[in-house]
Amino acid sequence: MPHPLFDQHQATLAAAVEALRTRGYWTPYPEMPSPKVYGENADAEARAALERLVGADFPLDQPGECARIAPERSPYGARLDVRYPACSAQALVDAASAAQPGWQKLGPDGRVGVCLEILARLNRASFEIAHAVMLTTGQGWMMAFQAGGPHAQDRGLEAVAQAWEAMRAVPAEAVWEKPQGKNPPLRMQKHFEIVGRGVALVIGCGTFPTWNTYPGLFAALATGNPVIVKPHPNAVLPAAITVRIARETLREAGLDPNLVTLAMFDAPESTQALAMHPQVKSIDFTGGASFGHWLLDNARQAQVYAELAGVNNVVIESTDQYKAMLRNLAFTLSLYSGQMCTTTQAILVPAGGIDTDQGHKSCDEVAADLAAAIDKFLADPAVATAVLGAIQSEDTLARVESAAEHGRVVLASRAIPHPDFPGARVRTPVVLACDAADERAYMTERFGPISFVVKVADAAAAVALSERIVRECGALTVGVYSTRPEFLEAMAAATERAGVALSVNLTGGVFVNQSAAFSDYHGVGMNPAANASYADAAFVANRFRVVQRRWHID
Amino acid sequence: MPHPLFDQHQATLAAAVEALRTRGYWTPYPEMPSPKVYGENADAEARAALERLVGADFPLDQPGECARIAPERSPYGARLDVRYPACSAQALVDAASAAQPGWQKLGPDGRVGVCLEILARLNRASFEIAHAVMLTTGQGWMMAFQAGGPHAQDRGLEAVAQAWEAMRAVPAEAVWEKPQGKNPPLRMQKHFEIVGRGVALVIGCGTFPTWNTYPGLFAALATGNPVIVKPHPNAVLPAAITVRIARETLREAGLDPNLVTLAMFDAPESTQALAMHPQVKSIDFTGGASFGHWLLDNARQAQVYAELAGVNNVVIESTDQYKAMLRNLAFTLSLYSGQMCTTTQAILVPAGGIDTDQGHKSCDEVAADLAAAIDKFLADPAVATAVLGAIQSEDTLARVESAAEHGRVVLASRAIPHPDFPGARVRTPVVLACDAADERAYMTERFGPISFVVKVADAAAAVALSERIVRECGALTVGVYSTRPEFLEAMAAATERAGVALSVNLTGGVFVNQSAAFSDYHGVGMNPAANASYADAAFVANRFRVVQRRWHID
Repeated sequence: MPHPLFDQHQATLAAAVEALRTRGYWTPYPEMPSPKVYGENADAEARAALERLVGADFPLDQPGECARIAPERSPYGARLDVRYPACSAQALVDAASAAQPGWQKLGPDGRVGVCLEILARLNRASFEIAHAVMLTTGQGWMMAFQAGGPHAQDRGLEAVAQAWEAMRAVPAEAVWEKPQGKNPPLRMQKHFEIVGRGVALVIGCGTFPTWNTYPGLFAALATGNPVIVKPHPNAVLPAAITVRIARETLREAGLDPNLVTLAMFDAPESTQALAMHPQVKSIDFTGGASFGHWLLDNARQAQVYAELAGVNNVVIESTDQYKAMLRNLAFTLSLYSGQMCTTTQAILVPAGGIDTDQGHKSCDEVAADLAAAIDKFLADPAVATAVLGAIQSEDTLARVESAAEHGRVVLASRAIPHPDFPGARVRTPVVLACDAADERAYMTERFGPISFVVKVADAAAAVALSERIVRECGALTVGVYSTRPEFLEAMAAATERAGVALSVNLTGGVFVNQSAAFSDYHGVGMNPAANASYADAAFVANRFRVVQRRWHID
Repeated sequence: MPHPLFDQHQATLAAAVEALRTRGYWTPYPEMPSPKVYGENADAEARAALERLVGADFPLDQPGECARIAPERSPYGARLDVRYPACSAQALVDAASAAQPGWQKLGPDGRVGVCLEILARLNRASFEIAHAVMLTTGQGWMMAFQAGGPHAQDRGLEAVAQAWEAMRAVPAEAVWEKPQGKNPPLRMQKHFEIVGRGVALVIGCGTFPTWNTYPGLFAALATGNPVIVKPHPNAVLPAAITVRIARETLREAGLDPNLVTLAMFDAPESTQALAMHPQVKSIDFTGGASFGHWLLDNARQAQVYAELAGVNNVVIESTDQYKAMLRNLAFTLSLYSGQMCTTTQAILVPAGGIDTDQGHKSCDEVAADLAAAIDKFLADPAVATAVLGAIQSEDTLARVESAAEHGRVVLASRAIPHPDFPGARVRTPVVLACDAADERAYMTERFGPISFVVKVADAAAAVALSERIVRECGALTVGVYSTRPEFLEAMAAATERAGVALSVNLTGGVFVNQSAAFSDYHGVGMNPAANASYADAAFVANRFRVVQRRWHID
């Protein structure tokens, strides 16, 4: 079934499909917040738009609204007080279910076309979304723009392209003609209908409210499912803007806007009840392990795609670019104060030290040099506040403040005043040193700017420990530094066994905690940190079924 | 990575992929047991081969063998007493895990090539497998050959082709080059390794030991997983032959034969323990709902693909081919004594009767005419025994004998002596009549040759009841007979909502209980009867993950 929005965005879709096939670099959404791309007044207009929302009702007209709530507190100390609609969960589910048949009948082309139009509009709103991400999550401006805007849109588009590939493999119609020897063949017409499995619930996190929401949102929507977005209570605004844009697009396309709604509740139990609603058939969740495991154990009626906690680690065996390695690690540990699910927590170094282009370095020297590299990188307060952003939650702040309990402090955290936001919670990273035996210290996720230089018996023990950490604690990323091919092979084998992505000898402008859409599989889905990956075929294939009918033809 | 077996079978794979794309009729495995195709002596040699196995040790040399057991009792009363190895579950898991890395390193091409070679050898062994299926399941000879041989091989090949499509979408290598304005681009090499999720357990059923085993076996194997086949204790022989052929093929290809093993236990608890083994990552199960739900509830470390019980139904609203409709239904209800997961159990007829080309027929007339059609079809004992086969289990026999408790008997079951097997349990179908209100009678699966003509208030109520049966009891098939397009549309909408395949006005040589590989999705996976489908993308995509590594290049 042709659809004007599909025709309009077909070139983007074709390029996205090709990018997935080759997994090289590609994006249709420029990552630089350039006025030339996004408009000379884009930033000013976005700021003004957000200013109008402060202390006001967010413009969303959803079914079953019973109150307005304003739960957000900015890590920058800025005033928000945006009031969002709290709607009855049953009303949202009912409205979503009622909207599904029309969405199904639109067919894959139409659905994909509408999804691509939503993404195009989200891209045009990148400045507004970026400011919303910055203010609610504490990200620095550049990360808020890139990860919250174009990179999140990339991940959404990637999910749409994967969904399209899975759906277009199913023909809508077929003629089945079976020879019968001398008799006329048996002939049947068959119709194959792609049917979404039911209401999708996408539960966002407090740190990446768009990047971790768009894959599930667009994978579910493209495959024929209505989506209820339940944002983290402290990062609602970027999700609310997204939902508003999606609903506007749907309405203008003559479709039921209740295909995408925002869920907000006063009580956490309401989220649990919604997650267990019999009509909720899929849940995408990013967040803490305890609620994630609760969902996996209790929301049994739904397919749960979960990204949970982990202990990302880097093994340093040797390097021929010691300073560049330290610079690279310093940036990784500093970026957004380590509040990325991909940030390294444990750095494993052989007790005997490492060979480098600067001579042999003892394990303690590596720790001290890493601390010095971080200090140097963050020496300029303007750079520091831009890179670090603010501490997203009081819990993370408390972890930073009590980190010294868990090891010998190699680098202490310090507070930095923010030039623009006097109330901002800005902290530099804390680096601890400990022994491999101190497993209770480093083999628990300590989310935030807290890392450990872990002294391991030798290089082989470091490989084994890295693998065990991934298997037992989960991990989204592992890195390795080594000049020895056989050691790199051992790490490759270990990470393949444990199921985690490996970055090798990063010394330049790519960092272990960065994951590029269309190229890097984010999360693998094979260790305790995540049971799904952005965005492989498994991320989309289970979100729809094929319901067929068949009849004789002459 | 090129592989000679991949090259050898590439044309078959390409044709299978194309068949999936168009979903027309296609097979590389001739379904007629013709000496011209399978060899002049194929039947005699197969019989002789099986004769040698009776009362003997089955030739399988597996790790951890601790006993030999011979649990099979033929529904035909034939002597079997084939002794299979009972191996320690831990030994099988250990051997499977040890075999996995080499299988992974072979890559998608090599794995698919080996799978296609196994299938080609299974095809050449079709006569041996068919006799084994017949003797263990009670199927008639022609069904045992077709469903147990070529059609099962089709389903295995379909799974391999789907797996291939999912795997070839992932490039093994990529160069990622991100422009950096005036600076040189960031360039990275990336390697994407397809890694099977771990040991696969495939649990077979007593009625279709190959047709329901090959999809899971080949989907798991092709995607990089070692497979432990746990057959139903009364249908071991076809699975054992399959495992023997797979192991021979693997060994000749220089691979570890323990990639495919047969699990046999004295105690059912051993199967439960194996299913919950932490290294078992996927389970394919066909069988009763109670063990299926036990697996879903307890084997939480594994992805479970389950085909369970259901209440398949047919709605008769009107027909312009009354006699042909009755003949078609009579065949469906008779074939293999209704012991197919796809056989109709409830036939819903409006209380006011139906319009037909033979005039108006009351609901009671429809029931009586259906009974007469079955009687007529089975009047010739040679036809009857060939079509009915034998009753697979004592439980099914008991259900047939007590069926009259559940409704008014329209057609009583009778025993028929088998010309070749004096001890065979052959029974004709029993047809009962009841009212829609008698839900306890017909809304429970009564596996075997037991069906109900259910009197429903009117046509609209029949649509609603059919949908409710699918939603509450599950169903693999629904049929409808109607001359009114608007009624057919209502049934199409109901079956899309409930998630079940619909066959419309079958009056010729296609039957509602038949499902053709490469064209018909078997099981949908959207209602309580099954959570997966043979073989859509979802059936393969979750069986592997992509583990990547990346490094800088100049």
